[in-house]
Amino acid sequence: MLNKLYAALIHYPCLGKDGQIISTAITNIDIHDIARTCRTYHLKRYYMVTNLPAQQQIVQRVLRFWLQGAGRPHNPNRSDALEIVSLKPYLEDTLEEIRRAEGQEPLLVFTSAKSGPGITTYEQMRESIVSETRPILLLFGTGWGLPPEILSLCDVRLGPVRENASFNHLSVRSAIAIILDRLIGEQVTKE
Amino acid sequence: MLNKLYAALIHYPCLGKDGQIISTAITNIDIHDIARTCRTYHLKRYYMVTNLPAQQQIVQRVLRFWLQGAGRPHNPNRSDALEIVSLKPYLEDTLEEIRRAEGQEPLLVFTSAKSGPGITTYEQMRESIVSETRPILLLFGTGWGLPPEILSLCDVRLGPVRENASFNHLSVRSAIAIILDRLIGEQVTKE
Repeated sequence: MLNKLYAALIHYPCLGKDGQIISTAITNIDIHDIARTCRTYHLKRYYMVTNLPAQQQIVQRVLRFWLQGAGRPHNPNRSDALEIVSLKPYLEDTLEEIRRAEGQEPLLVFTSAKSGPGITTYEQMRESIVSETRPILLLFGTGWGLPPEILSLCDVRLGPVRENASFNHLSVRSAIAIILDRLIGEQVTKE
Repeated sequence: MLNKLYAALIHYPCLGKDGQIISTAITNIDIHDIARTCRTYHLKRYYMVTNLPAQQQIVQRVLRFWLQGAGRPHNPNRSDALEIVSLKPYLEDTLEEIRRAEGQEPLLVFTSAKSGPGITTYEQMRESIVSETRPILLLFGTGWGLPPEILSLCDVRLGPVRENASFNHLSVRSAIAIILDRLIGEQVTKE
């Protein structure tokens, strides 16, 4: 299995509480926890996508502390994890970077806590990760999730986690951890 | 499958950086994220175990806001998740509460990011959750993990997640999400 998996946490465009399109705020722990998870599952990059300059500065400040500042001697593992974080204003910039690095367009994978038509199961996706030659970009939403305009760009729609549970409000940090484990498990990719 | 699973996040006794026994600090997001995960996987209770009064007050303040204060009208799902949180000073108090509620001693399950002798696989544990009649308490460490004195109390030692990855530093929030998903997956327990 080749190492060709990417993840992106989208802060714009996202759905708001009433279905409108919003920019969500960066959550500090999303930088750390999701970078650690992506690094543990050998993803190539973890993109944080936010179009707001003040929010971009928050991410840049955290990355500066851990990559160039006092963070590294304090906890080198944390710096190691944060090295795979890449900050982008829009999904388009993310796609452009992957296209340039890989020489081909990534397969785009939509995720949601809700179900919908044309769901790909985790088992199917696990198989297509092995057989797929293109890079794969998993998209994760914040706020009330990814909007239809992102879904329409995607090649694959993954099913929700714990669809039949009486309560289904995982944090995006927990959802990403579970989804990467379902897709990759204990498989170790070649670098 | 009966609903008889419990989880506890231990803040004392835990290992410190140099292997000494320490009390770790409460992390606010551990209250929220882990309660949401435990609720999504239908656990009966999520115990936060800390022996320090100032740390207990932090948890009590967060729970008060969401269970009795302005939190519930703002986000009722969050209150719903936090209803399963129970604060205990020591593991002994946790065991006593489960023993009283269930009428029997729980099976104690040790977790760690490191491997060791006598590992139970996730598949084995998944099967024993179905067949086991006793309540089951999963123990999770903070800091540098759970100490040998906790291991010696446990009936089962679960294997680490991503043991062969070149980087293995998941947050405890992500590790709990992955472990519950491996043990329970999409199974819905009877209440």
